[in-house]
Amino acid sequence: MTNLPISDDLIAEANAREAAALEDEYGALGRKLERAGIDIDTIKGKVARFSVAVPSWGAGRGGTRFAKFPIAGEPTNIHEKLEDCSVINQLSQMTPRVSPHFPWDKVSDFGALREEAASLGLGFDAVNSNTFQDQKNQAHSYSTGSLSSTEAPTREQAVEHNIECIEIGKQLGSRDLTVWVGDGTNFPGQQDLARSFDRYLDAASQIYAALPDDWRMLLEHKMFEPAFYSTVIQDWGSSILAAQELGPKAKCLVDLGHHAPNVNIEQIVARLHRFGKLGGFHFNDSKYGDDDLDSGSINPHQLFLVFNELIEAELNPRDGFNPSYMIDQSHNVTDPIESMMSSAEAIGQCYAKALLVDREALHLAQEANDTMMAFQALRRAYTIDVAPILAKARVEAGGAMDVLGVYRESRYRDRKAQEREAVGLGAGIV
Amino acid sequence: MTNLPISDDLIAEANAREAAALEDEYGALGRKLERAGIDIDTIKGKVARFSVAVPSWGAGRGGTRFAKFPIAGEPTNIHEKLEDCSVINQLSQMTPRVSPHFPWDKVSDFGALREEAASLGLGFDAVNSNTFQDQKNQAHSYSTGSLSSTEAPTREQAVEHNIECIEIGKQLGSRDLTVWVGDGTNFPGQQDLARSFDRYLDAASQIYAALPDDWRMLLEHKMFEPAFYSTVIQDWGSSILAAQELGPKAKCLVDLGHHAPNVNIEQIVARLHRFGKLGGFHFNDSKYGDDDLDSGSINPHQLFLVFNELIEAELNPRDGFNPSYMIDQSHNVTDPIESMMSSAEAIGQCYAKALLVDREALHLAQEANDTMMAFQALRRAYTIDVAPILAKARVEAGGAMDVLGVYRESRYRDRKAQEREAVGLGAGIV
Amino acid sequence: MTNLPISDDLIAEANAREAAALEDEYGALGRKLERAGIDIDTIKGKVARFSVAVPSWGAGRGGTRFAKFPIAGEPTNIHEKLEDCSVINQLSQMTPRVSPHFPWDKVSDFGALREEAASLGLGFDAVNSNTFQDQKNQAHSYSTGSLSSTEAPTREQAVEHNIECIEIGKQLGSRDLTVWVGDGTNFPGQQDLARSFDRYLDAASQIYAALPDDWRMLLEHKMFEPAFYSTVIQDWGSSILAAQELGPKAKCLVDLGHHAPNVNIEQIVARLHRFGKLGGFHFNDSKYGDDDLDSGSINPHQLFLVFNELIEAELNPRDGFNPSYMIDQSHNVTDPIESMMSSAEAIGQCYAKALLVDREALHLAQEANDTMMAFQALRRAYTIDVAPILAKARVEAGGAMDVLGVYRESRYRDRKAQEREAVGLGAGIV
Amino acid sequence: MTNLPISDDLIAEANAREAAALEDEYGALGRKLERAGIDIDTIKGKVARFSVAVPSWGAGRGGTRFAKFPIAGEPTNIHEKLEDCSVINQLSQMTPRVSPHFPWDKVSDFGALREEAASLGLGFDAVNSNTFQDQKNQAHSYSTGSLSSTEAPTREQAVEHNIECIEIGKQLGSRDLTVWVGDGTNFPGQQDLARSFDRYLDAASQIYAALPDDWRMLLEHKMFEPAFYSTVIQDWGSSILAAQELGPKAKCLVDLGHHAPNVNIEQIVARLHRFGKLGGFHFNDSKYGDDDLDSGSINPHQLFLVFNELIEAELNPRDGFNPSYMIDQSHNVTDPIESMMSSAEAIGQCYAKALLVDREALHLAQEANDTMMAFQALRRAYTIDVAPILAKARVEAGGAMDVLGVYRESRYRDRKAQEREAVGLGAGIV
Repeated sequence: MTNLPISDDLIAEANAREAAALEDEYGALGRKLERAGIDIDTIKGKVARFSVAVPSWGAGRGGTRFAKFPIAGEPTNIHEKLEDCSVINQLSQMTPRVSPHFPWDKVSDFGALREEAASLGLGFDAVNSNTFQDQKNQAHSYSTGSLSSTEAPTREQAVEHNIECIEIGKQLGSRDLTVWVGDGTNFPGQQDLARSFDRYLDAASQIYAALPDDWRMLLEHKMFEPAFYSTVIQDWGSSILAAQELGPKAKCLVDLGHHAPNVNIEQIVARLHRFGKLGGFHFNDSKYGDDDLDSGSINPHQLFLVFNELIEAELNPRDGFNPSYMIDQSHNVTDPIESMMSSAEAIGQCYAKALLVDREALHLAQEANDTMMAFQALRRAYTIDVAPILAKARVEAGGAMDVLGVYRESRYRDRKAQEREAVGLGAGIV
Repeated sequence: MTNLPISDDLIAEANAREAAALEDEYGALGRKLERAGIDIDTIKGKVARFSVAVPSWGAGRGGTRFAKFPIAGEPTNIHEKLEDCSVINQLSQMTPRVSPHFPWDKVSDFGALREEAASLGLGFDAVNSNTFQDQKNQAHSYSTGSLSSTEAPTREQAVEHNIECIEIGKQLGSRDLTVWVGDGTNFPGQQDLARSFDRYLDAASQIYAALPDDWRMLLEHKMFEPAFYSTVIQDWGSSILAAQELGPKAKCLVDLGHHAPNVNIEQIVARLHRFGKLGGFHFNDSKYGDDDLDSGSINPHQLFLVFNELIEAELNPRDGFNPSYMIDQSHNVTDPIESMMSSAEAIGQCYAKALLVDREALHLAQEANDTMMAFQALRRAYTIDVAPILAKARVEAGGAMDVLGVYRESRYRDRKAQEREAVGLGAGIV
Repeated sequence: MTNLPISDDLIAEANAREAAALEDEYGALGRKLERAGIDIDTIKGKVARFSVAVPSWGAGRGGTRFAKFPIAGEPTNIHEKLEDCSVINQLSQMTPRVSPHFPWDKVSDFGALREEAASLGLGFDAVNSNTFQDQKNQAHSYSTGSLSSTEAPTREQAVEHNIECIEIGKQLGSRDLTVWVGDGTNFPGQQDLARSFDRYLDAASQIYAALPDDWRMLLEHKMFEPAFYSTVIQDWGSSILAAQELGPKAKCLVDLGHHAPNVNIEQIVARLHRFGKLGGFHFNDSKYGDDDLDSGSINPHQLFLVFNELIEAELNPRDGFNPSYMIDQSHNVTDPIESMMSSAEAIGQCYAKALLVDREALHLAQEANDTMMAFQALRRAYTIDVAPILAKARVEAGGAMDVLGVYRESRYRDRKAQEREAVGLGAGIV
Repeated sequence: MTNLPISDDLIAEANAREAAALEDEYGALGRKLERAGIDIDTIKGKVARFSVAVPSWGAGRGGTRFAKFPIAGEPTNIHEKLEDCSVINQLSQMTPRVSPHFPWDKVSDFGALREEAASLGLGFDAVNSNTFQDQKNQAHSYSTGSLSSTEAPTREQAVEHNIECIEIGKQLGSRDLTVWVGDGTNFPGQQDLARSFDRYLDAASQIYAALPDDWRMLLEHKMFEPAFYSTVIQDWGSSILAAQELGPKAKCLVDLGHHAPNVNIEQIVARLHRFGKLGGFHFNDSKYGDDDLDSGSINPHQLFLVFNELIEAELNPRDGFNPSYMIDQSHNVTDPIESMMSSAEAIGQCYAKALLVDREALHLAQEANDTMMAFQALRRAYTIDVAPILAKARVEAGGAMDVLGVYRESRYRDRKAQEREAVGLGAGIV
């Protein structure tokens, strides 16, 4: 781990400047929590063990169908992306795993890539297949869909690509395959809604059959985009039914931006867990559709309520509780490193707040139908400023108290802008 | 059947006035369909056999939490409601069954009620239980919910009421119990989302155990209202999982207004059928929420697309296909008899149009990924004016060609306004 | 002011028990803010001067069209409602004004009512007219609408009622008339969308003409409910155009639950202010429609962003800045006193957080297109736990540090349950 | 006009095959309408005079941020696009104008381009500026916005580009400039919502000043995408206020897919017309967001209701009525020529149906608050199959009765696939 991109001295000096302030805040919060019967160091320990993966593609600037505005120093290959992810983890100490996407991140030697990542303090998380866009020299186009296509050779190609992803994942140390397909329709009648689903299930079961016993297949539902009339796995209902058909290694993955307006996502979390199918999360935020905005930037209270369900699930594991967490955002207007560090902080804060809920008071109030006090049990935890807990945990692990400040001070992006090849204009892939 | 409320002579005279026009239109449409290889009389025969139930409570004027504006001649008991439903069926010849709601429609002698209905040309459809409001002298309040309440006596009371509904239904000749509960929360934290669902399942299984073998239990999901943060059966996902837990007699009922904005309801129909759980429909239309507007008044194309899935389901019955159809609307600004006759017409038109889809062309285009032609197969059927088919079928069955015209000519409501007790002001129940 | 409902001793004793904790928290927060260059006492002073009105009708339990579940000790007349509002203000010290609704709050002697309120520490805020429901013995029904009805006598009746409300308001010391109408349609074609608006404008201008020079007429838009296809003032666009037509005393009132899904309400605030038409707010929260949930219970971040715009508006007053603030909620599952105290706290917290935004940093980042730092300027303020500031201000003004705790300790509602007449079952008016 | 791409003989032969069927259907519909007091030839004449523009960019295959799947024979420059648009107009006889987009459609000699279009039977409609993406060698990036950017040179560049578009438009015979900007934010706080709007107004007024007296500036609002937290002209409210500030030549343009979920768009049409600001339409359809699906493919009833308002507006011109109509769709899964011909048909059908509404009956029912009969006046017109009217008008003008059939028979796209350069993969711009 001698390869970390940011100078440890820089981090240490910056932390030293803020040390007294942190002690004051942490101490005051500790006293406040103690009055509520909570030991702040216990919470800090849990926060220190919490982590969330970052996606390799998230290290690049995102865009829309209208435009993508690149920034100088953007990464253009998996090696540069790993380096950027290493910055995020070094400073935030919360993102030790990278989730790769294929064929985007393909290299000739995956064993070497795994070592490269390790030298940057990183491991690999779920592997992601890509059957929503065509690659040069690809035999069959995904214009008719992939796993649900009417074309048998296309479905086979998609199945084989997923199996290849599993093989790569084994070399990288992954144990999850995330399957999201862009399959769907833009017109009523374009495809038979029932037969499409049958074809999807048939193809998915072939992938499932190739899955090692200790792996999971994470099915990701999405209401719309790129298809705008129907999608084959449109919601958690279709997702869980598919997962049930496939078998116990198939689980459901929740992306916070993939739902209909107004939907109660925290309840979906509770339902998936109730039926043993909660596989993981793609964290982001949204105001309109799959906006892929920074986690907690629009509705942090919803993120807190999701974590509240996760804590409940952990306490009531029923068929087990082991969700995979990843940030999945499109950084259209910010430096991706800054966005992912800020997002990890927002996610970690919601986790910490959910830990602070007085569950005994909550459950007693629920049992007594004391609605106001049940709500207040959540509200009291939500209003607490947990920043000192996260900062303390981070600093103790070698990270930066002020992640954005140290990152800017490091001039990392400026240096990369000198070194790296420029990215062209275009519409955005993410 | 000598008790029908509208004079047969009045109907016959009105029909005679329009007979030539109908012949011209029916003949022209017949030639058009013949050119497309379709026999109009075959379609007419299917339309003649199509029916949809009406809800007893729909015969009264509906309202909102803000106000209800009664009309003169409104029914105030089940006997008057049956009489009004008889008018609807006599003129439209499409609504031969009434769905009762308890305790609203409770009488001392249900055998006599069944005979009374029969004399009006009516039978009984699904029985509906009511555990979303308190009745005078009720032992336990549903303010904490019903089947999912934390209070065991409340749950027991709700279970017993549902079992009582089954008993009544047996006397009335029903074979479906529709269960919709208002259970849910208005605050994050008010209830535990997982434990609420467990309690619901436990109580529902007790009702299920009391269900005769040839009955079905129809679970109706709803996203919100009267609960505004979460509902216990919030969507088709929770509904189908509950139905799976309960057993084969439990099916899912789709109310068109109970979904999140933008949701593809026709796909939900396809999914429920795929998994053998499509139990029935509550037809209405909506623009914003559970507006309970007249069927097809806002988005008739969506209604057509739903029927397109139903025809596909009928052709591919998998685990069988026998959905229960009911109109479920709140008639806040119209005469309920007029609205239900107009709605039955709109529903029947969508059924007829779905029958006219060239399914061979549709399926071939789907298989060939000829998106435009697949869409056109639906569009061609949708644009056809099928009114002559419905009119012909209606007239042949003794109904009125111009249902609204004959109803107004009959001055039925004016007569009832003389006979019936006036309804007071208030906020609206439905 | 010797009539206040809660014992001052009870408050003082409870506050004393928590005094040391409050000092510790307030001190720590003061040091934190000081490090950011902010004087906590200045903020506390602004918070102490902040207030929000409560609606008289909010003191009663609300309901839906399905049911209303009353609670023991609910108020049934304006005198009891004032007493309950007095509790809210005594403990929270943030709600010194009550907004009355007519004819619900009609009394024979409004001068006496004003004195009664004053003796409870209360004044009167905006008067609200009611033309969305019929009253007994009313000459013309509002079933066809009110200000936009096709019926001239109905429009005249609605105008006269509004003018009567102004006259009452003069006696009560009000200076705002809030006009919300339920006018709209449930069917396409039911009314001409243009001519309805013309009639509304014509009738509204007659009310405007009767408005004293120092009064304002607050137009409240709403997307839907009780009308479910169109409403005459459906959004802020129709509202501001109507206000422009009427004249400078006409302003727009924003109810947070009256918008389409996903709409950016804080931007509407900015637009209304930009054009000199921001008149006021009805605070509540919602997940689906006009759910009228407790302020900040669903999306407190949105409430903060609204206050962020209000602070910006105050700093850039353009045509002046003097919005009227009111809580407007339907308390279906809680004790209304508790909900309004909790909501006042949530609103006050958002105001305090908006005050803590480093506006210089925000504006510099905006000018420099430093998106991340602009966002962080808001986020830093939002994450601060401002509860100690509000508590300190409240205690210094004679209120309770723990408003809910002292209220429960007072057993106020239990006492009222002994004294007051019981409320019957029914569907809910709010 | 000897350059038309499709053989007139081919068209004539195909029409001849269907002539008898058309006569039968047109005759039958004529008798039906005659019974309702409507002369079918009068309606046919109005339909024959109806037209809608097509966008040059719509001739190419569209895509999403995820992928674009090109088709063989796609146009890659304005000359090929004009040729494709000529096919659409030749067969449908309803799309005689093309709306160009700059700099995409830039050529060295616009006079020659105008002649080239004329030889293909085409003229030019509104010119569209593009300040939402960066072009190679552009001095200033639009990454900070365009007309509302904080950067003065960027705003100037955007203003100059718009003025250049006007100059080009003069040469092409256009008289409308359509201004849509992608300006907005992805984060709360990213920009000041009020100052952004001020800058937009300031820059827009400079464009307005350069507008010839007989031109219009059409402001297009959009709720979201590419910006996902706020957009500078987010809805019709901001649009009409901006248009009022700019002056009488500024009007509002409504794109059917640019609104919040559930919004009543036909009412917005009525409001814009009421205030003299209805400038035009971009026709498409959507289920979720700005899906840019084919017009009328999802909700044709809404399209009919929009045309119903347009007919009302035409009958009550207040400040005049002269809206500009254009198809604006993203053809991701179909041949764009086929989609635009099918869409023109769908639009024309809605126009024809709106003409068939019995307005006297409608208005009488509205005045009498006879809701059911008012609705039936619309419903009767909507259910009529008007295809024979459009077909007859088309055939008489030299177009094809079966536009899609003749197009496919012509093998136009196959021929172009031989001639034209292939388009590469990528994410989609539209």
